Amino acid sequence: MSYNLLKGKKGLIFGALNEQSIAWKVAKRAVEEGAEIVLTNTAVSIRMGTINDLAKKCGTVVIPADATSVPDLENLIDKTMEHFGGKFDFILHSIGMSPNVRKGRTYDDLDYDFLSKTLDISAISFHKVIQVARKRDALNDWGSIVALSYIAAQRTLYGYNDMADAKALLESIARSFGYIYGREKKIRINTVSQSPTPTTAGSGVLGLNDLMDFADRMSPLGNATADDCADYVLTLFSDFTRKVTMQNLFHDGGFSSMGMSRRAMRTFGKGLNAQFHDVQDNQFPFGQGEE
Amino acid sequence: MSYNLLKGKKGLIFGALNEQSIAWKVAKRAVEEGAEIVLTNTAVSIRMGTINDLAKKCGTVVIPADATSVPDLENLIDKTMEHFGGKFDFILHSIGMSPNVRKGRTYDDLDYDFLSKTLDISAISFHKVIQVARKRDALNDWGSIVALSYIAAQRTLYGYNDMADAKALLESIARSFGYIYGREKKIRINTVSQSPTPTTAGSGVLGLNDLMDFADRMSPLGNATADDCADYVLTLFSDFTRKVTMQNLFHDGGFSSMGMSRRAMRTFGKGLNAQFHDVQDNQFPFGQGEE
Amino acid sequence: MSYNLLKGKKGLIFGALNEQSIAWKVAKRAVEEGAEIVLTNTAVSIRMGTINDLAKKCGTVVIPADATSVPDLENLIDKTMEHFGGKFDFILHSIGMSPNVRKGRTYDDLDYDFLSKTLDISAISFHKVIQVARKRDALNDWGSIVALSYIAAQRTLYGYNDMADAKALLESIARSFGYIYGREKKIRINTVSQSPTPTTAGSGVLGLNDLMDFADRMSPLGNATADDCADYVLTLFSDFTRKVTMQNLFHDGGFSSMGMSRRAMRTFGKGLNAQFHDVQDNQFPFGQGEE
Amino acid sequence: MSYNLLKGKKGLIFGALNEQSIAWKVAKRAVEEGAEIVLTNTAVSIRMGTINDLAKKCGTVVIPADATSVPDLENLIDKTMEHFGGKFDFILHSIGMSPNVRKGRTYDDLDYDFLSKTLDISAISFHKVIQVARKRDALNDWGSIVALSYIAAQRTLYGYNDMADAKALLESIARSFGYIYGREKKIRINTVSQSPTPTTAGSGVLGLNDLMDFADRMSPLGNATADDCADYVLTLFSDFTRKVTMQNLFHDGGFSSMGMSRRAMRTFGKGLNAQFHDVQDNQFPFGQGEE
Repeated sequence: MSYNLLKGKKGLIFGALNEQSIAWKVAKRAVEEGAEIVLTNTAVSIRMGTINDLAKKCGTVVIPADATSVPDLENLIDKTMEHFGGKFDFILHSIGMSPNVRKGRTYDDLDYDFLSKTLDISAISFHKVIQVARKRDALNDWGSIVALSYIAAQRTLYGYNDMADAKALLESIARSFGYIYGREKKIRINTVSQSPTPTTAGSGVLGLNDLMDFADRMSPLGNATADDCADYVLTLFSDFTRKVTMQNLFHDGGFSSMGMSRRAMRTFGKGLNAQFHDVQDNQFPFGQGEE
Repeated sequence: MSYNLLKGKKGLIFGALNEQSIAWKVAKRAVEEGAEIVLTNTAVSIRMGTINDLAKKCGTVVIPADATSVPDLENLIDKTMEHFGGKFDFILHSIGMSPNVRKGRTYDDLDYDFLSKTLDISAISFHKVIQVARKRDALNDWGSIVALSYIAAQRTLYGYNDMADAKALLESIARSFGYIYGREKKIRINTVSQSPTPTTAGSGVLGLNDLMDFADRMSPLGNATADDCADYVLTLFSDFTRKVTMQNLFHDGGFSSMGMSRRAMRTFGKGLNAQFHDVQDNQFPFGQGEE
Repeated sequence: MSYNLLKGKKGLIFGALNEQSIAWKVAKRAVEEGAEIVLTNTAVSIRMGTINDLAKKCGTVVIPADATSVPDLENLIDKTMEHFGGKFDFILHSIGMSPNVRKGRTYDDLDYDFLSKTLDISAISFHKVIQVARKRDALNDWGSIVALSYIAAQRTLYGYNDMADAKALLESIARSFGYIYGREKKIRINTVSQSPTPTTAGSGVLGLNDLMDFADRMSPLGNATADDCADYVLTLFSDFTRKVTMQNLFHDGGFSSMGMSRRAMRTFGKGLNAQFHDVQDNQFPFGQGEE
Repeated sequence: MSYNLLKGKKGLIFGALNEQSIAWKVAKRAVEEGAEIVLTNTAVSIRMGTINDLAKKCGTVVIPADATSVPDLENLIDKTMEHFGGKFDFILHSIGMSPNVRKGRTYDDLDYDFLSKTLDISAISFHKVIQVARKRDALNDWGSIVALSYIAAQRTLYGYNDMADAKALLESIARSFGYIYGREKKIRINTVSQSPTPTTAGSGVLGLNDLMDFADRMSPLGNATADDCADYVLTLFSDFTRKVTMQNLFHDGGFSSMGMSRRAMRTFGKGLNAQFHDVQDNQFPFGQGEE
């Protein structure tokens, strides 16, 4: 069912890799709701994933770009404006990667070149996208920019490593640029802090399955799925949310406002009991590089 | 233009007094977007305001109820379910009043009976509405409840007085009940923290005009109006936001994330200069009961 | 060992019941650090507890007062000033009680008279204490007022019930009155959000033991004890923190900034495993009135 | 007057340039309160400032180090441990610089090499200091690490530019590493969010004087000075705050909890009136590169 919520809107979507990607779902739903879109990702991700299938379904093109490269972004914005025949209305930034996580460098043994890359890919790229868009005057007044974030920006989760710092930086950039772009062009910039989601990007994070189970039991509505997230992001691109800006919006089934649920505590309590009977800690499936 | 965003949804709206009311705008827009609604307010407010005109425009009824009275609320919920022929989907709580503000009692000279009334009317009524609705099993699964709040719940604004405490309590109730009602019936409960708005309710607050001007100059998108607010609240009643719960959502043009804007500082700087030339503080239009 | 951190300071301490009480520890440590104090509690608590022993150790008196009664508070402040021969410097508010929790009324079945009592005892009493102190001009400039709070004010914990709302109200009162009393007399007002602590007051809360275990495993420094809390509160009464006001200060071993620790997840993971072997949920030691 | 609050403690202090520096005040007060310290700064800052005078007064040495250089930090930590004859207890990080601010690059025209430098100097250096200290096992159990931050990490202030993002990153690093270092060695890590302070470092920020005036009028206790800040930081190094970690602590006279004070609004209102009489915006002393 479609409401034509984004009828007449045009947007650029970063970060769709495959069917699991939140960006993929956003793209699909945006088109269902009447939007025209352009897709982009790095050349490597385009090869490894299935974004061309998505482009076909959405009747659009994929323009390769490395979001850490300003020249790539300039080319991307120019081509996107050509494709649309002018300005457009929304941007989704769904990009994150940590070489430290990938290489198993724990947070007390970070490689600082890797850290720079983590920040550049996962946070500074957001600034670059916006700065290039603004210099190109690429967005219509009252446009909307959204980046995907995670509660690690506020609260430490073991194993999330330097991605937590990247998300904090990302959310700060949304505020800082939201002020500038808002007062000038009425562009709003927000981040959506999403439940842990079983995407390809998330799969590198240590102990993600147990964490997802914990989050699900803590959240009164359960974890928000990628499909849920897509729907929510659409409201932020629509004209119904024109005065919401510089916010980090939790889309997490209530997790962020929970201290402890009965349901999560029940499982935790079982674990407490189990510990009296089972002292073989090593059975627990954490690896060596764990935090 | 309508998207039929609330097609098939039914809701109960508290607090429409007259055309300035946020609740009025929400009601009107909800109907435009395909919802059926029932209106309610106190008997006094119904007489003093023009809610019956709104009911006519919306093709619905007004059921009087004092939101601090559990029997009134029980009757209201029963009548609303009769009207709809069953369960419904959303509730808007837009109720606030401080006898201390009205009677000019400053925060360091509160009347504690008045304070109880402030809390009962402006915050505990929200709990009562939800508790009665839940006991009556009045809401469909995945229903949505919204109350209107203000940033005074987080930051002190002179003159806002005990309403600040009431809003903090209101937002806490949203979290506390959001957990209970969410895990059981998937009902989400949120508060919307709205820009200062020139409603009849707001007009009692000291120095509101200057405050609104300050907020407007601080906010990159300017103050959110009552019309803007209505649109935003509709997204929270729609199926696009099913996993958002227990949140306080700032709808304020960016105010809450601003420390200081150039535009507000410009006016402040003029005031600094003016002070060297004009030491007659008494010219400033604040009354005696000021805080 | 004493630093004489509070040398020359005089203060009034609410809420010492017995040796487990945080207020008890604060009183004892304050005296060790050179302060003179006056103790107060309700007549019932004085009878049921051992506060007179504490008074003896601290070389001071106990002045009975019901903190919800303005006349009692007026008498208390007058007597305290008489005892000290003038103004004093600090106040500790360590008071909380919920009849709804005591009587097993769950949050979706609150008794509203009980709720009023919860708020009056646990939050509004804080306003009353401050308002009476201010009207009596009882505090020296640069004095310090502290109330004890809990993270339930920000995040919902099952079983904490309407005490969560009371704590949110309490923290708001600290901000609201912190503004007024700060600009006039340089009095600072803060709340300390303490780890769950095994006091007599806390013992009514459902599942407190498991919760304390969870909090301890989540917190990198472990739960803060009542002794730790006393030390921290002393810094807030000292001259080292004169410009800290209107804050809610987490004193919790890091809990408030944790999303998930490896240690807590280990126990949770054991619980997950246990569930496959043990489906007899009823063995889990929660009662009927559970939330 | 001294309480010997830090008797027996040893610490390393980054960032003292001259008498205005917060780090200078912390160093001086720490020694007055019984601590032994080592000072460090970059070679350039040592030449430009007067840190050697401070070292003389404090009876200690200055060890040059560029806090962005891991080898420099390794040498610094080794030398510091040699100086102390073993482990030490506290570290102050008071370092921040933005080439974008210095060169007048506005936030919508950032130079990305400059941004990397801003982040490296102002935030990542904090991680490097801690990582090196931990690898060297340089700190005694229950040690304390503090970095100085600013509310720009949460709220946008025009002209603060990419330093806002650096402070957000800095505060995230405090949380992330606070978890790791806390669970292992009981080291606590916090940031102090200080009022705007007229240091040499702050002087590059656009419109700082007006901003300081605004903050002062907003804050019920007025702006916290560098001297106030030093006192507060000492409490965090002392044994009285052992369970406070992963926190960002506002030390700002109440500013962070204010929405609007009567005093600030009075000046703002004068500015509003002045605008009717004076439309010559250009008189206002902002430059061209303003934000």
